[in-house]
Order: sequence, then C-alpha cells, then structure tokens
Amino acid sequence: MKFFFEKSSLLPTDEIETRKKELSTYLEKLTAVLESGTYEENESSICLPGDNKMTERVMQLLAEKGIEKLKYIIDVGIGGSNLGTKAVYDALYGYADTVEPERMPKILFFDTCDPEYVEKALHVIKKIQNKEELLITIISKSGGTTETIVNAEMVLSAFLQAGEEILERVVVTTDEDSPLWKTAVEKNITVLAIPKLVGGRYSVLSPVGLFPLAAAGVDIKEVQRGALAARELCVKNGDDENPALISSIFLSFFYKQGKNIHDLFVFHPEFESLGKWYRQLMGESIGKDGKGITPTVSVGSTDLHSVAQLYLGGPKDKTTCFLSTAVSKKIKMPEKLHFPLVKDIGGKKLSDIMGAIQEGVMATYYNQKIPAISVILDDVSAFSLGEFMQYKMIEIMLLGQLMGVNAFNQPHVELYKTETKKILSKTTL
Amino acid sequence: MKFFFEKSSLLPTDEIETRKKELSTYLEKLTAVLESGTYEENESSICLPGDNKMTERVMQLLAEKGIEKLKYIIDVGIGGSNLGTKAVYDALYGYADTVEPERMPKILFFDTCDPEYVEKALHVIKKIQNKEELLITIISKSGGTTETIVNAEMVLSAFLQAGEEILERVVVTTDEDSPLWKTAVEKNITVLAIPKLVGGRYSVLSPVGLFPLAAAGVDIKEVQRGALAARELCVKNGDDENPALISSIFLSFFYKQGKNIHDLFVFHPEFESLGKWYRQLMGESIGKDGKGITPTVSVGSTDLHSVAQLYLGGPKDKTTCFLSTAVSKKIKMPEKLHFPLVKDIGGKKLSDIMGAIQEGVMATYYNQKIPAISVILDDVSAFSLGEFMQYKMIEIMLLGQLMGVNAFNQPHVELYKTETKKILSKTTL
Repeated sequence: MKFFFEKSSLLPTDEIETRKKELSTYLEKLTAVLESGTYEENESSICLPGDNKMTERVMQLLAEKGIEKLKYIIDVGIGGSNLGTKAVYDALYGYADTVEPERMPKILFFDTCDPEYVEKALHVIKKIQNKEELLITIISKSGGTTETIVNAEMVLSAFLQAGEEILERVVVTTDEDSPLWKTAVEKNITVLAIPKLVGGRYSVLSPVGLFPLAAAGVDIKEVQRGALAARELCVKNGDDENPALISSIFLSFFYKQGKNIHDLFVFHPEFESLGKWYRQLMGESIGKDGKGITPTVSVGSTDLHSVAQLYLGGPKDKTTCFLSTAVSKKIKMPEKLHFPLVKDIGGKKLSDIMGAIQEGVMATYYNQKIPAISVILDDVSAFSLGEFMQYKMIEIMLLGQLMGVNAFNQPHVELYKTETKKILSKTTL
Repeated sequence: MKFFFEKSSLLPTDEIETRKKELSTYLEKLTAVLESGTYEENESSICLPGDNKMTERVMQLLAEKGIEKLKYIIDVGIGGSNLGTKAVYDALYGYADTVEPERMPKILFFDTCDPEYVEKALHVIKKIQNKEELLITIISKSGGTTETIVNAEMVLSAFLQAGEEILERVVVTTDEDSPLWKTAVEKNITVLAIPKLVGGRYSVLSPVGLFPLAAAGVDIKEVQRGALAARELCVKNGDDENPALISSIFLSFFYKQGKNIHDLFVFHPEFESLGKWYRQLMGESIGKDGKGITPTVSVGSTDLHSVAQLYLGGPKDKTTCFLSTAVSKKIKMPEKLHFPLVKDIGGKKLSDIMGAIQEGVMATYYNQKIPAISVILDDVSAFSLGEFMQYKMIEIMLLGQLMGVNAFNQPHVELYKTETKKILSKTTL
C-alpha cells in the first residue's frame, strides 16, 4: 500500500504538526491496547488480527463442518454484520458472479428482507441436493436485529420441513450470552463469539467476517497479515508515514472549513462494496452530536460519466480519497481498431488506459484545487484488503478524537427502531 | 404513483406559491415543446414517449434480428448511455441475476473497461455456440467515448477471429452522422439514431434504452405508457398535484437554506440502479457554476444499519426523497419462530414488516424535522419505472430553472478528458 498526500491534500504543514501533537497521547493509548492483546477497550478491535486463538477456532470449525462440497454460503446479517464480508468477497469474487455462474462456492447475502429476492434466492438454494453443499451463517451482534431474525427464519423454515439435519450446517455468530446465543445453544447450533467491545462496524476481522470469508475460499491469514502490516504503520507511528494519522487530520481540517462530504473514489468497480463498508464506518462513527461528514462512494471510470461534472464544476464542498491498485493486467487492445475513433489506445493494456483516465482525473482535481489524498494498493488481494480496512478503522478512531465525538456508539439508531416496533405491534396478520 | 409532501416536506406555503408563479412560463414552454412533437429544443426528450415512429423502428429491428434464442445482450456504453437501461433492467431482473443463473436473456453491462471483468465476461460469452444467442449494442452519443470504444473493440475482436458474421448481431446507437455512425455504416452495421438535442442523461426513452430493454423482454410500450402518464401530470399542471413542480421547489428551497445533499432513499434494493440513474441526472444537470446539490442513494433497510445514525444524529444538511412501492407480496413468516427474539413478526408478510420499518423511519424524519418528500409507485413494473423516470427528468428541468443553471450541458467533463488524452499520447506500448 502506498499513500500520497503531500501535493494533492492541500493541507497546511502547521496544521499537520499541531494535530499530530494533539493525537500523540491517543496513539500511545492505541499502542497500549494493542500490546495488552485483550478486549477491554472500545479500541480493542485492533487486537483482532493478532488473535491466534480466535483464528484457530474459526479454522477448526470449518474443518469440522467440511467445506469441500460447498456451493452456497448463506450469510444472514445486516450492517456491521455483513458489510465487511461483502467488501472482501465482492472485491475478490462477487463483482463477477453474474459472468461466472459456475464458480463455487458463492456467498449469498441476506441483509434486508426484500420479499422478491428472498423468494428467488430460496428457490435456488432449495434445489441443493446435499446439505454439505450449504453453510448458513447467522450474524447479529445484539442478537435481536429484526431483518436478520426474519431472514434466518425464512431460510431455516425452507429446509426444516425436510428434517432437523440442516441445523448442523448453521453457525450463529453473536455476542456471548446474547438471547440469540442462548437460543442457538439450546438448539445445539454451533456458536461463534464476537468480543463484547468490538462493535459491528469494527468487526470484519472477528469471526463475523473471518468465518464466511474462509468458507468462501479467502485466505484469512493473508487478510490478517495485511491488517497487521497496516496496524504497525498506523498505531506505532507519529509521523507523516502514518496514513491513518494524516488522513484523519485531512478530514477534520477540511470539515472545519465547511467541506461536509467525503468521497471515496475507487478506481476498480470491484471495490464498490469496500466503499460501502467504509461508508458505514465513517457515517456511523462520526455522524453524531450534530457533527458528521457524509461519506459517498464513486466508482471510476463509470462515475466520471455521472457525477464528475458536479465534482469539478459544482460547489467546493468535498474532500476525496482516491483508491486504486498498481495492478497491470496482460489483457490488451487489438493493434488495429475496427472503430479508430479514439487516439492512442490501439495495442495498449486496458489497465494502462484505465490508469491514464485516473491520472487525468487526479491532475484535474489538483488543477481545480480540490483536496485529495490517494491510496494505491499493491493488488486486489486478501492481504491488500486487510491492510486497507485496518488503516481505515484506525483513521476513523483518530478522526473521532479530532472531531470530539465517540466513534464507538450509535445512539440515534434506536429512534426509528422504537417507531418501527410501535407500528409492528399495531399491524395485524 | 402517489406523491406526498404536505406534512413531511416542511415547505412554507408562500414559497410554493411564489415559485409556482416563477415556473409557470417554463411549464408553458414545456407544453409547447411537447405539442410540437419534434426534437428542436433542449427539452425535447419529453417528446420521446409519444414517438411512435421511433418505437416502430426499434420493434422492427428486433424482429429482423430475432430475439427468440437470445442469451446475452452485451450493452456497451457508459453514463447516459447505460444508466437508464441498467436502472430498468436491474429493477425488473438484474438485482436477482446471481440467484437466477438460468433466467435468460441477461444484459451484461460493459461500462468502464475493468480488465478483470472484461476478461471474465469475454470468457463466458465466448462459450456461446450460436450467434443468435447474442446481441451487441454499442452506444455512444458523441461516438468517441474512450471506454465504449475500448470495450467495443474487446468484444468484437473476441468474435471476429471466427468470421465477420458477428457484425450482423451488432447495433450501434449514436448521433446521426457522428464518426461512430459513419464507421458503422461503412461496415454495414445496423445503426439507430439518438435525436441530436436529447442528451445522454435524458435518453433512456430513446433507442439508447428502448432497444436493449425490449431485447431483454421488457415491455417498452408499458415504459412509454408510464412516461406519458407522468408527462401529463408534470407538464400540463401548475398545481400541487404536479410532483415535478413541488419537488423542484422543495429541492431549490432547501438548497438555498444550505442543505447541499439530496438523498434518494429507496425502500427496494432492486431500485439501487434507478437511484444511480437519478444521481447522474441531478449531478450532471445541476452541478455547475459553483452551484449544485450532491445526490446520494440510500437503500432501505440495508442502509439504516449503515448511515441512519449520521442522517438522524449528524448535521442537518440533507433533504430526502423516499421511494417505495405499494406492493404486498404473499411470502410470509412462519407462525412459530425458531428464534423468538423479535416481537410481533410471527406469521406476518415480509412486505408488511418492511413497510413497518419504512414507516418507522419516515415518522422519525418527521419528528426530527428532516425535510422529506415521498413517492410510492403502484408496483415494480415497466409502467411504474417509466412514470418515475419521466417525472424525475421534468423535475430536474424545473430545478435548473429555479437554480439558474443550464440543465442540459456538462462543460467541466472536458477538463479531465483533456488531461487523460495528454497522458495517453505519452504512454507507450
């Protein structure tokens, strides 16, 4: 992973130095949390990538369940319970699932309880002949998430008519001793624990993400290795080489200047779900007490033909983080074109053409004085994804400090849940 | 389609009345454009749904090509050339494509030239045995869009080794007499024209959208019938029943109050691409001269577990348009639950549970004084999609008037294209 900010961020040097000092105590705290290796602080999610006991439990469970014949992993969970898993899965496999119908296993995500999708998805999974082709993970930190309980019931009842055996293929991931945990244990369903102080949006490196990803064939040890590398860089480092430190200063500085939107502009369509994971991380961690930056995700080059006009010609109300990779793929254009209508593309690699488009955009942002930082991953791999996600989780913890908000709670979510419960209690069958 | 604003929009009555007067002349202009039935004004896209000659040409072409055996429609285009098609396709079919691998024909969208996706997609389409299983539409208004030309070359060269016959299955949609048009005609490739003054983001009801959608089995006459109904409501109507009029007033009023973000909150995940279509429509039409509203798309109920905390507890910098449907599906929860952890859901229809969640959210927005309007479509159908899209296109034309910007150009897009061309001219093979 490479991180660039010096020219493009437009950050004043004295701002960087002042904020670095402000954050030094908090970085010391993060170092202490990390060295404790326990789960006793809000920040304890940074201990996850080094938790070998947890990894062993996940790997052992997969060995018990057997994944050789797997065709579908049904991932029942919403928000922090599935966005991280989906981010990694879509980057590595999912984005191309429509054009690779035969690549298995696939993860099917049951997040919202959309009647149409549930009906169609149940139709395809009910065709499964052998229960070993299926694994069902039900994930809810609190254990009482409406959509997750609804989807879990729908999936289970589709199979239970044929007998209780399907319960052997279910793994419930939740807080130890949550109501869901207790019910699962009563029914002899396998359970995996989420450490209490690891909140949903910081939980991708816990069993929440690791179990379904490993089942889908992702090398989770590589994800962890990437996260460990980023952790080393972002916690034990008070200097400009620390991307989490610099990007949190970048975000808070321009927020105070009135830029209330932050765009993660990914130059790989496979990263759109990764952007949505970050959107939750930033939105839910920082958006409170009347403060907050609205996270948006743009996908290059698609969105250049959609919102670039606004970004370049509209109000200067945004900061941007460009995310791309250094991958150079062999696939290239024919030398001789059937439609010779664009200059300088014949015979070139597609990745070089995409690279030129991205460089053109970045140069224009610079010319137009739109503040931007840039992250270039070495490749699209389990390692790089772990690295990026760990960096961003630490960035957001630091940003919470700079903005004076608690980056670990979500008090306003209860508001609509209360209203919904009132309505549900009144609706009749 | 039903439209609600009275309580929830928080719009002052005198603002509505003042702006209605301001827009009355422009509504008269739209009426005149519509009655002319020609393509001589920037606003002429509103004539598309009544253009029977164009529809006949599309239907006749499909009959000539033959679509009985179709498996894949390769839709090569980006931005205004594919977002509308993708909006309708994904709402009706595409969202569930992963769980309906055998449903054909499928549209595969080649928008950006992502090397990984292109490689995988070419692999699957090269397996096609019979050229009648394939239809390739190449769509570029200007005829010189880099990504589109790159993808067109990649797709064609994958087949041309086997002979020129594949060109019979290609349809090029572009401005009459564009360089692409001329090259296509030279090569005996079928062409479809986009009326000159119909810009990409207003072109979904032209052959740009109609041809691939009809090929995919969408009843395009129903799309048009929906659009005609919305046009009647939104052009020939200066009153509160006109949703385009009210929502343009809503958007401009709160923009002037400092709300620089507009969230289209869709309560059907199938509508996410429809949201992205609207995002281009608003972003590119209104974002200029330093003005602009940043459009975001949220998907219910998924994003309640992602950005609801920010929306409810963060800065009051947004307006919202809720989009849902009145559909009630039969699929329901079992009476007796395996995980009895959420009250009042046993035996209930999934659509009623989703409805309760949405109502809970809307009640909370109202309690928190977050301005919102609400659109409820009768169903997820070709008719309703045509209706919604035509309403939104007229809304944006009216919003351009109220904000004093030209809603039909995109001058800043050239900035990055120029930079990209410089870079491409320097990169060597």
